[in-house]
Amino acid sequence: MNSLTLKLIGIIHSPFRQAADTPIQSCMAKDEEGTIELFPEFMPALRDLEGFDRIWLLYWFDRIAIPRLVVKPFLDPNEHGVFATRSPARPNPIGMSSVRLLGIEGPRLRIGELDILDQTPLLDIKPYVPAFDCFKTERIGWLESKSLLRLHADDRFEKPPTPRS
Amino acid sequence: MNSLTLKLIGIIHSPFRQAADTPIQSCMAKDEEGTIELFPEFMPALRDLEGFDRIWLLYWFDRIAIPRLVVKPFLDPNEHGVFATRSPARPNPIGMSSVRLLGIEGPRLRIGELDILDQTPLLDIKPYVPAFDCFKTERIGWLESKSLLRLHADDRFEKPPTPRS
Repeated sequence: MNSLTLKLIGIIHSPFRQAADTPIQSCMAKDEEGTIELFPEFMPALRDLEGFDRIWLLYWFDRIAIPRLVVKPFLDPNEHGVFATRSPARPNPIGMSSVRLLGIEGPRLRIGELDILDQTPLLDIKPYVPAFDCFKTERIGWLESKSLLRLHADDRFEKPPTPRS
Repeated sequence: MNSLTLKLIGIIHSPFRQAADTPIQSCMAKDEEGTIELFPEFMPALRDLEGFDRIWLLYWFDRIAIPRLVVKPFLDPNEHGVFATRSPARPNPIGMSSVRLLGIEGPRLRIGELDILDQTPLLDIKPYVPAFDCFKTERIGWLESKSLLRLHADDRFEKPPTPRS
């Protein structure tokens, strides 16, 4: 089989309605909070998740215009292969963010430090575990010269808005 | 739309032919190496990736028998919601591993510290960036009491082998 079909498991709600307001990465987020509305059939899968203070979210970059192989990322005026960036316009438009888990009430999760657009479809939740996810590295490629001063995205990858009739 | 269809972008080759040989997480891997055979049409997306010494792989857990909402994970005799674990038998069977990037030659990437079964379908590659991916946490739920001594998986989530006729 050459393809995999995924189901949506919920919707991420955030204060960010457009790319220009959205932090580029969760480490650049400030105090804004959001929620996840998990579809009720998946609630048993949340058991014991409240014990973690950070979680990974995998989600669908559903507002990109077209997938690309080479992009000019938000943090650089030069082009790079899209696999060397965290840009959303990828062959498989899956986003990956580590966010703070603030609480769970039934099917609703409160989250913080998010870098995700409102109404984003959710694909998976995993616990964040420093022993599994934190590694020292010596080389971070083109990012080495960047001081990460730019905090917010823009609409370069997005579908144009639908014209009003 | 309630579903998202992804295309395979390549195949991961590893020395691990069955779950029982496979490290549970890349931090438990030793010196084994593997390769990624990227489908040639995606090669432009690799530009500048060689500057990173660690990369994220998103891939398909294609050998699980059935998705589950509650599992007994490899590291615990107690059950937990699958979103509170990194177990493969999830509603959307997407695996996520940080591996060492050892080199790139054309469409072939050499990787190390992998925890992935041989012939695993690849969905995405992202650069590993400590500023984006490393966070201090205080609570890691049910994992807090685990000393992570178990290194290898088993076949509890896999489809049974096809009987020989």
